[in-house]
Amino acid sequence: MRDFTADHRWLSINTATVRRQHGRDWPLLEILDACARHGIRAMSPWRDQVAQAGLAATARALKAHGMELSGYCRGGMFTSPNARDDNLRALDEACELQAPCLVLVVGGLPGALAGRPEHKDIAGARHVVHEGIATLLEAARERRLPLAIEPLHPMYAADRACINTLEQALDVCDALDPGRAGAIGVAVDLYHVWWDPKLQAQIERAGRERLLALHVCDWLVPTTDLLEDRGMMGDGVIDIQRVRGWVEAAGFAGYSEVEIFSRRWWSMAGDDVLATCIERHRRCV
Amino acid sequence: MRDFTADHRWLSINTATVRRQHGRDWPLLEILDACARHGIRAMSPWRDQVAQAGLAATARALKAHGMELSGYCRGGMFTSPNARDDNLRALDEACELQAPCLVLVVGGLPGALAGRPEHKDIAGARHVVHEGIATLLEAARERRLPLAIEPLHPMYAADRACINTLEQALDVCDALDPGRAGAIGVAVDLYHVWWDPKLQAQIERAGRERLLALHVCDWLVPTTDLLEDRGMMGDGVIDIQRVRGWVEAAGFAGYSEVEIFSRRWWSMAGDDVLATCIERHRRCV
Repeated sequence: MRDFTADHRWLSINTATVRRQHGRDWPLLEILDACARHGIRAMSPWRDQVAQAGLAATARALKAHGMELSGYCRGGMFTSPNARDDNLRALDEACELQAPCLVLVVGGLPGALAGRPEHKDIAGARHVVHEGIATLLEAARERRLPLAIEPLHPMYAADRACINTLEQALDVCDALDPGRAGAIGVAVDLYHVWWDPKLQAQIERAGRERLLALHVCDWLVPTTDLLEDRGMMGDGVIDIQRVRGWVEAAGFAGYSEVEIFSRRWWSMAGDDVLATCIERHRRCV
Repeated sequence: MRDFTADHRWLSINTATVRRQHGRDWPLLEILDACARHGIRAMSPWRDQVAQAGLAATARALKAHGMELSGYCRGGMFTSPNARDDNLRALDEACELQAPCLVLVVGGLPGALAGRPEHKDIAGARHVVHEGIATLLEAARERRLPLAIEPLHPMYAADRACINTLEQALDVCDALDPGRAGAIGVAVDLYHVWWDPKLQAQIERAGRERLLALHVCDWLVPTTDLLEDRGMMGDGVIDIQRVRGWVEAAGFAGYSEVEIFSRRWWSMAGDDVLATCIERHRRCV
């Protein structure tokens, strides 16, 4: 297992972590500058932030800073209208930015995110998701841009993603890519999967070919909000180092990407949040 | 599948559903009277409510009304100090009240419920839980009082129960009771398990011998609180009838127990809540 205590060369910042400090949006190119200033070598930006900064300008700025991506957030939402076209655009953007993968949050029951679920057939939604991934995978293969299915915590099954365990995500991968050719895999976000009694076994099953991204934060006790109360690494109960050990034993050697949705951390100065991410990355990841 | 539309003979009320109406505790014996008045034939009381009413008085009142229990809430919390003695008392109370099973909420990381987790070793906590159930099972067998492991939603893994899927609960049952002698099984609460892609398969695996209780409510979109925003049946996205079909196909023929933790429903008159439970039981369960 790699030693993270001496430096933060394997730290990546998911830009949602610092997307709106002090109640105002922190523009992507400013986040990029700040990350570079802190010696951070990789990021994972969100599409809305890229759109605001401009795709070409973002690509130029990444190149100028020598900044790598650890992923691109996000495609998916296969149960929503226009998912197909939107996902093709996401793929093209990810290629333009030289992202290593497109992260997929697959969507839940149609309409549920807006509070108006159209039906209760989660098995049906899962079927639509499976078909959507299968179709997108063809375009992803053409572009040589891997898809990373991110299983989301079961508390998001209704409205955000009906793929909720690593086992389930890997079943989809195996069905669509039995040869493990590297075109599809998973993004393992500890917030979503830490509780799973089958986590270690499924990480082993995933192996190097399927482990495309590792997201870290922490689970707070108590957690006071379903969406915006994720913890900074070390503040909660996830045994991050143990799980990173499993992931690395399975062959993963990429970035550890910090993704924290938290009103608390959004209320602080962005530079302070980045400094804390670095310190916790060394000590707790 | 049984027809619930014509009457509510298979409705049971978990007394947490109406435990504190209008901001004040509704005493158990009053809840019991009200349930009887509404033609409800079964309940599942909580230990603290029974303690307040008195065990003998509760037993007498149940008998006087011809009220059955669909379960007794609850034992478990195996990772807490004094769990063993407390669980033996819970068993004895369940026997005194002629409950069909003692429901087990098994506990999470020690100290986490109080916001001070003592460690992050969830595998270790699961081992302690397994051992605790094994020990309690001997006492339960002597009393011929089955234990019903209730898998809790993964969002409660840290602080309330580290058994989080039906598969995991059934693995414990199979390890401790390979002969399926009926001494241990599961309480299937749809709130906790509805999202699980393996739900149908695991219900089939459970079979009649393991299916000791069925709890119903609904998952709201959005859900605004991790603890106290459960929905009334029909108000959310759980396909209750479909899952009841699976449970009954597997041999379950007991009560459908309504358990709703909800500030909204606690803010109403208890009699109105019971009337709504009856109406929804007929229409949505």
